[in-house]
Amino acid sequence: MQIALDAMGGDHAPGPIVAGALQAVAADPDLRVTLVGDQSQVTPHLPGGKPPERIDLFHCTQVVTMEETPVVALRKKPDNSISRCWQLLSEHKVDAIVSAGNTGAMVAGGFRLRLFLKNVRRPGIAAVMPTLRGSSVIIDVGANVSPKPEHLFQYGVMGSILAKHALQKPNPTIGLMNVGSEEAKGNDLAKETNALFNASHLRESFIGNIEGRDINKGTCDVIVTDGFVGNVILKVCEGVVDFMMKVVGKELGSALSAERDKGLKALQGLADRYDYSEHGGAPLLGIDGICIICHGSSGDRAIKNALSVAANYARLKLMNTSSRS
Amino acid sequence: MQIALDAMGGDHAPGPIVAGALQAVAADPDLRVTLVGDQSQVTPHLPGGKPPERIDLFHCTQVVTMEETPVVALRKKPDNSISRCWQLLSEHKVDAIVSAGNTGAMVAGGFRLRLFLKNVRRPGIAAVMPTLRGSSVIIDVGANVSPKPEHLFQYGVMGSILAKHALQKPNPTIGLMNVGSEEAKGNDLAKETNALFNASHLRESFIGNIEGRDINKGTCDVIVTDGFVGNVILKVCEGVVDFMMKVVGKELGSALSAERDKGLKALQGLADRYDYSEHGGAPLLGIDGICIICHGSSGDRAIKNALSVAANYARLKLMNTSSRS
Repeated sequence: MQIALDAMGGDHAPGPIVAGALQAVAADPDLRVTLVGDQSQVTPHLPGGKPPERIDLFHCTQVVTMEETPVVALRKKPDNSISRCWQLLSEHKVDAIVSAGNTGAMVAGGFRLRLFLKNVRRPGIAAVMPTLRGSSVIIDVGANVSPKPEHLFQYGVMGSILAKHALQKPNPTIGLMNVGSEEAKGNDLAKETNALFNASHLRESFIGNIEGRDINKGTCDVIVTDGFVGNVILKVCEGVVDFMMKVVGKELGSALSAERDKGLKALQGLADRYDYSEHGGAPLLGIDGICIICHGSSGDRAIKNALSVAANYARLKLMNTSSRS
Repeated sequence: MQIALDAMGGDHAPGPIVAGALQAVAADPDLRVTLVGDQSQVTPHLPGGKPPERIDLFHCTQVVTMEETPVVALRKKPDNSISRCWQLLSEHKVDAIVSAGNTGAMVAGGFRLRLFLKNVRRPGIAAVMPTLRGSSVIIDVGANVSPKPEHLFQYGVMGSILAKHALQKPNPTIGLMNVGSEEAKGNDLAKETNALFNASHLRESFIGNIEGRDINKGTCDVIVTDGFVGNVILKVCEGVVDFMMKVVGKELGSALSAERDKGLKALQGLADRYDYSEHGGAPLLGIDGICIICHGSSGDRAIKNALSVAANYARLKLMNTSSRS
């Protein structure tokens, strides 16, 4: 299992990125990580200044920053770490790629190479959400902010495959994010997508429109939405969890006395469990190969988790390379 | 202060709606409520079967249900309670109208009458969100699911007026909901709206794009977004708060022992405080008069709160009737 890791991507790169790689290979004896980045910046973070066993370095000189416009940056900086990761994947030198860098550049990098699975029109980023009934997949959370109905329909197909194989849901149900459950609700995109699902082979799995409050109830296994709305949803969830943890912590701090520490410790445990930024990244689905996109603020633990998720997906053979278009 | 209340609107109408009206007039000696609805269904919920002091009844025979398509229903059922509320407002017989009925029909009812303030192109629903730094306004949360950039710009203007007068923010800041803070981010609507704000007289108040996680941080006082995204945001917040309360309650239940009841009681207090469905409804801004739209699941307490909010806004003279177009 060989994974290329963008050592330069992320708000605090390369320090925590390299640390995450070291932790991941220590935890998984079958894992090999290729650190893609500027040698002079990466090596200071390696023990003794050189790569240990099962870690190697792919040197490149450029970095796409978080602020840069993806397509422009990829063209101007041909030797950037994101493009090099994609190159390694397209040459079948690695099974998966992982980056906490510029999300748009990661998506655009794959788009440029057209490393799509057969018949896939546009890849989409899937995220796994906690619910009262296990986990659900939400797709797209930011790859495609102006999708067409057929893109959303394909996200339903891809999300179902992820739910089936990664979340052990044998017959995943699909819901369309909308502003009301009735078919006539929503904007044109939502109405046309609803009609597409109802006229398709997925109509038995399609439960229709769902609303924002259905996500955490676990009303369906796959939530289909456009990349703009999905990205907002993901970040709103992150924000509300953070907010609730702060207000609950404050409230418990004053309500409890003898058991205050116990209560706050239990709360901290939950905060860690639902810390979206520490989750193992989100897969870009529709790609021939595994591509995991991490939160820009990812620390070593998040990177370690993302490498482990990438290895897991690669082992599940979630993407079928034989069907490449 | 005279408010028309749609007695037939809401999942459990008319029982809790009438109960809310009774509580509201009992709490506010200056308040008079006109219950708009079917006399035979409303009177059984009145003490002794007849309206007490400061409550009167405006009889109408029809109801727009939650499932009906707004425009069709308003046309087919001319004597529905929502249209009658709007009629009372347009005839200046009431200062405000309140409904927990079909949101689309409430908006369409106002749209039909063109009871807009001067220069307003499209009204928008504003909601007040709790943040770590007081409250913020988010607009639009569902009146207009396919807006144009100029509509969003006007929502910024209207939201600022609400923030200034109802939330006591003398110089409200405005943020545009987007998928990233950089100007080039987002779909066409977001990019064009960003440019509109930056070229306008509001550019000093406009802080640029914000992300989903900024809402509860209180990054800005007014969050501008389209009705589709805003509606999803509101319901996602509701869902996540509910989810967190459940998982925190379970966790505290097992972590605490002697102080378990104390901890759970503190949590319940928070659950009540952040129960979006019990908040006092959301104003439809841009209307010549006060129009408050409540959650379909509103109970008596929510209706009482909504009547109190409506009275408060009417007293603030939030809408300037002299400027009607």
